[in-house]
Amino acid sequence: MFPSRITALFNIHYPIVQGGMVWVSGAKLAAAVSEAGGLGLIGAGSMKPELLRTQIEKGRTLTTKPFGVNVPLLRGDAAELLEVCIEQKVPIVFTSAGHPGKFIDRLLGANAMVVHVVANVKQARKAHEVGCHAVVAEGFEAGGHNGVDELTTLTLVPMVVDAVPIPVIAAGGIADGRQMAAVFALGADGVQAGTRFAATVESSAHEAYKQAIVEAGDTGTTLTLRRLAPVRMLKNLFASRAMDAERQGANREQLLQLLGEKRERAGIFEGDREEGELEAGQSAGLIRDIVPAAIVVQRMISEYEAAAKKLLSPR
Amino acid sequence: MFPSRITALFNIHYPIVQGGMVWVSGAKLAAAVSEAGGLGLIGAGSMKPELLRTQIEKGRTLTTKPFGVNVPLLRGDAAELLEVCIEQKVPIVFTSAGHPGKFIDRLLGANAMVVHVVANVKQARKAHEVGCHAVVAEGFEAGGHNGVDELTTLTLVPMVVDAVPIPVIAAGGIADGRQMAAVFALGADGVQAGTRFAATVESSAHEAYKQAIVEAGDTGTTLTLRRLAPVRMLKNLFASRAMDAERQGANREQLLQLLGEKRERAGIFEGDREEGELEAGQSAGLIRDIVPAAIVVQRMISEYEAAAKKLLSPR
Repeated sequence: MFPSRITALFNIHYPIVQGGMVWVSGAKLAAAVSEAGGLGLIGAGSMKPELLRTQIEKGRTLTTKPFGVNVPLLRGDAAELLEVCIEQKVPIVFTSAGHPGKFIDRLLGANAMVVHVVANVKQARKAHEVGCHAVVAEGFEAGGHNGVDELTTLTLVPMVVDAVPIPVIAAGGIADGRQMAAVFALGADGVQAGTRFAATVESSAHEAYKQAIVEAGDTGTTLTLRRLAPVRMLKNLFASRAMDAERQGANREQLLQLLGEKRERAGIFEGDREEGELEAGQSAGLIRDIVPAAIVVQRMISEYEAAAKKLLSPR
Repeated sequence: MFPSRITALFNIHYPIVQGGMVWVSGAKLAAAVSEAGGLGLIGAGSMKPELLRTQIEKGRTLTTKPFGVNVPLLRGDAAELLEVCIEQKVPIVFTSAGHPGKFIDRLLGANAMVVHVVANVKQARKAHEVGCHAVVAEGFEAGGHNGVDELTTLTLVPMVVDAVPIPVIAAGGIADGRQMAAVFALGADGVQAGTRFAATVESSAHEAYKQAIVEAGDTGTTLTLRRLAPVRMLKNLFASRAMDAERQGANREQLLQLLGEKRERAGIFEGDREEGELEAGQSAGLIRDIVPAAIVVQRMISEYEAAAKKLLSPR
């Protein structure tokens, strides 16, 4: 057991959370991460309420350990998705992309633990004030939807740690145990990794998308669509078009038209490497293989221990 | 003595480099940092060759310890500035904003140690190939001129560490010893801090600029002027105009006109908080006081030790 406020809070072995990701983290991945001693999350962002229900039920056939659900609050049916979590007695709910105040009393009343994803200090303070049990402090390097303030994990995490007394889970750019040690040095109590778990055997993403993550180098991602909601994705034909439109001062409507529909599904689930939106973090440049989720967890812990020991020994 | 490849390379006590900054780091600041056991750098970016010469001479009256000079290679007179360094037998030259290949043989032939600032893996490999002794891996959160790839310190540093065998100095967003421990966990051999040293007693910047750094919160900076050369600065009236122009798709010429002349000098040296360009990193949100440079060095080391110890003890 790895002692931290996050392992204590969730009653898990390692303070490693697998981020909820659209088209990636169904029951299979979430259960695999929880079985390996971390905390898996079913990503409800690409699910209708009925599918979320069956995924939670499926997850319980795969592991007896706790797993959670991530609900993006910008979804029109966020309230319904949260009701499914309550009905299914999901012990831990992560909320993101919105303000948890509207829903928190209902969740706390149902004895769920609530963790909110924040991208600046004000959001962290608000999450604490309304009663969240912990926050995820997610930096600019993260894949998928991103905050508008562009604070990086290295600067955001210590600022959030200084601002709130509740446990802080660091996210954004984290794929290995050196980085886990780094954010613990900043005062984090746990890590959340997305892209690293997207490229695992149990991820429900298309193989072509997983392969694109493995092939991406250091400069393989870009943050674009800033005028809609900033999204970090792998560079491809679609990303180039979005960046060009942005440089030419495209407005919201023009970007919405360019985005069209089901772009994430096309990229991540159907594997269209050029026309799809391949959400991924800068950590893609550190990911070199597609492995079982349990290997990711084990590697991260052993790399953490090695990095932590090196800090105090002769360098 | 803090054992690291950087303290060994430069023969200094602590692996803390004070970044060269326009209008901030003259002889006084560089000497104060070197006296405190780190490595001070005179920032030649805002100096003509004659001024650089007198600043180097002045520095030698203030300390007998080694200090270096930072030369931005985009300067039209970069070759002249480097000749001043050679004439003055400056032991350590940091080059940035350009490719060191054109100048490196001349510098190495004069027995200078050369360190180049990089923002991606390709630049790091090139710096190593041409013979640099070390690299500074500088992330997106850094103040002032910034790479176009937007890699953050947390992702850039481990990628550069994996790519080159020479020592890596981490830079971008670093103001305290927790962050120093964090980047050492990533494999860095030293840190370079800019903004933190800009807000010191010995910094030659205007008091109003130092105060603006202290007052800045987590979301106090922005990266703008991406179409000229991306610059991170404190948000103010000028920054707002630059961001607005960018959103409206302003071209290079329009941005150049908006920028005008002597904008950095007006902000940093003359203290114009609204019309000046107040270059600063995201670390501004962690800086709460103006102290002597020696205090910055001492704090950073004691915070490092505390953070490193915590990583291995019960959390």
